This record gives sequence, structure tokens and C-alpha cells, in this order.
Amino acid sequence: MRSHLATLSVASGCKQEIMDLTGRIGEIAGNSGVESGFIGIYSQHTTAGVFVSEYQAALNDDILAFLGRVVEDGLPYKHNSPEFSDCERHNATSHLRGLLLGHGVQLPLSGFAPVLGRFQSVIFAELDGPRERTLQIQILGE
Amino acid sequence: MRSHLATLSVASGCKQEIMDLTGRIGEIAGNSGVESGFIGIYSQHTTAGVFVSEYQAALNDDILAFLGRVVEDGLPYKHNSPEFSDCERHNATSHLRGLLLGHGVQLPLSGFAPVLGRFQSVIFAELDGPRERTLQIQILGE
Amino acid sequence: MRSHLATLSVASGCKQEIMDLTGRIGEIAGNSGVESGFIGIYSQHTTAGVFVSEYQAALNDDILAFLGRVVEDGLPYKHNSPEFSDCERHNATSHLRGLLLGHGVQLPLSGFAPVLGRFQSVIFAELDGPRERTLQIQILGE
Repeated sequence: MRSHLATLSVASGCKQEIMDLTGRIGEIAGNSGVESGFIGIYSQHTTAGVFVSEYQAALNDDILAFLGRVVEDGLPYKHNSPEFSDCERHNATSHLRGLLLGHGVQLPLSGFAPVLGRFQSVIFAELDGPRERTLQIQILGE
Repeated sequence: MRSHLATLSVASGCKQEIMDLTGRIGEIAGNSGVESGFIGIYSQHTTAGVFVSEYQAALNDDILAFLGRVVEDGLPYKHNSPEFSDCERHNATSHLRGLLLGHGVQLPLSGFAPVLGRFQSVIFAELDGPRERTLQIQILGE
Repeated sequence: MRSHLATLSVASGCKQEIMDLTGRIGEIAGNSGVESGFIGIYSQHTTAGVFVSEYQAALNDDILAFLGRVVEDGLPYKHNSPEFSDCERHNATSHLRGLLLGHGVQLPLSGFAPVLGRFQSVIFAELDGPRERTLQIQILGE
């Protein structure tokens, strides 16, 4: 049995941005020496998300527009109010949108590679950028 | 340590449909030869979801109605527009609803069985059927 | 390889309540004898949620207010109707809000501790309390 933990850094260039991590995750898996088991991909941040979806520019725009509709800007969020919060980023909506997407995903690992469907990618969503972000990749198996 | 990967096929009969996978997941776990560890259940598709909930016909209808309210049909989604997308299924809402549910779940495995609460089931949601769908079941443990 | 399953009980005092489990999860991990691998934290209930977020009173209020906006009280949910359902708790909104949060999370385990970012906590959301609730903590590694 082998356990392998790797760090993956990503740099976002915009306030909100959707990035395909599939290639870099596959490289980490391929170099881990673990043939089969689980791989998990975890954001270390509370205003970002990691999920599995189709990576397509049009759909990425639909996802960000949807998150903007369901988590509205401009409401009187307590997290944005100096009366209730010492956070100066006023990023309550970034937190709530991140909550909907989730902070991490797991996948089977088989043949030294993550198991994904034909149209599936591992996607990172920056929701309060631009920033340097860190993910942890955990692999366990044999 | 043993790693066991199995494929599970499901056939949906409707555009949207909620199915209880608990029994079939339990069979796969029972036949895996792994007594304790983790079991993960993953859809290989981007317009479906896998989650843990109570399986009840009335609640299933409430879930689909909720997804229809929060992800509205009839908006000008880019994924449905030939100008931005080559997808001819016009299924942007299916993608967004799948994103809310998530593509997979993990559970503890104990005594050769998935660990679930009294009212919990492992549920597959078809969001763009009817179709043949594939899930991957990964088990790791001893 | 070692597999370790622990039970964690929490008691909520309100209808809806957000609790930080990070300290107790860290204790269970530290006492498990497993140095590296995966740790998973799973609610055994269908009207509660487990997720990773920043634990801050103001943000917790924003999360509950958001769940109240997106899953509205007072709609004619079938799960609340004696015509369709034998559930007498009339808690359809609790189920739907739990679905958005998810029933469990996984994290890497490294150095006998869960791997979390600086502002990340493991959080339990009671959505139909007050009640005694049970979580299962699964650890697998070496």
C-alpha cells in the first residue's frame, strides 16, 4: 500500500475563472507509482471550488452566470458587514458559490490514471481572484 | 490491501428519473472480498448526479421540481446556442442540475457493506435521459 | 494498511445550526494510529449536511439565509403532504437544503492529521433539529 500527497499550484487571472486541471492531475497520478485505488483533489481555499463537469467555454460561462443568479450580489450579507465580520474582502458571495460547487472530488485510480467518463474533466473554479491557489492531491492504493 | 473496481450500468426510461442504487451497491461490496475501508460510486456522465438522500417517491418529485426552479428552462444558455457551442442536445440545464447534485459519493465500508444511516440511500439522478448510463464503483481496504 | 471507523455524536439545540467539527475530527485522526491516507466524515442523516468552509458566525448566518432563499418554505412540497407521504415532520426543505450541502467530505490525512487550508473547517449543518445526530469517521492508510 502506498500513500502519496502532492501539491498543485494554480494562478487565476480574473475575479472568476474556470480551469481544467485534468491534464496536471493525470501527470501527478502517472508519476505516483500507485496503479489502483483512490485519488482525491482538494482546494485549500474557501472561495473556490473543485468539481467534475464537461470543460467547454460556453458551459463555463453558463456555470458562472448560474452561480451569479442563485447567489445574488448586492444583498446585505453579514460576512460583508463591518458590524458582524472582520473580513475586508466582502466576498460572501464567493463563499456561498464555493459551497455549491464543493471543495474537492475523489475518483477511482486505475492503470496509473484517474477514471473519468468521456466528457468529464476535473475543474477548478476561482471565485474570488485573481490569486495564487493551492490544491492537495492525495493518492492511496497499491 | 485490496483495490476493486466494478462497473454498474443503469438504463433510464425518462428525461429525468431518480433511481435507488443501494441494493446493487451493496451486492458489489458484498462480493468484493474487502471487509473495511472506502467505497466510492461515480457517474461517468456530466448530465447526471449521484448523491445520498432518502429514497421516497414524494421527495424524489420535490427534488426534481426544486432543480427545475433553481435551474430554469428557457434562459439563453450559451451551451444551447449554435453560436457558442457545438452541442446539439441543448442540455445546459441538465449540466447545471448535475453540478448541484455532484457526480459521486464515498462511504465507509465495514463488515463487507457500505455504511449508511437508517434513511439513507445511494441515489442516481438521470437528468438528460432516457439513456444507458455507466457508473464506476471503487473499493479500497483490507 | 489500517482501516479505522469511529462514531461521532453531536447534539443540536436549534432547528438550524452550524457546528465546527474540526477539533473533534483532528482528535479522532490523531488517535487512529494512521499517519497518511484518507479521512472521510459522513452524516448518517438525510436532513443535515457536512461540508468544508470557513467557520465564522456572520458567514454561518449568511449560509442559513441563503439556504432559506434558494429552498423556500411554504411551497406545496409532496413530501409534506399526507396525500403523497407518510412523513409527519413536514421537513421537505430540510432534505433539499441538505442535498445542496452534501452528506459527507473526504480529506487527505498526513502526519496523523487532516489536511485543511488555513481558513477551512469541517462543518456540520443541522437542518431539522434540535436532535441527537451521528457521524461516521472512516480513516484508511498506513
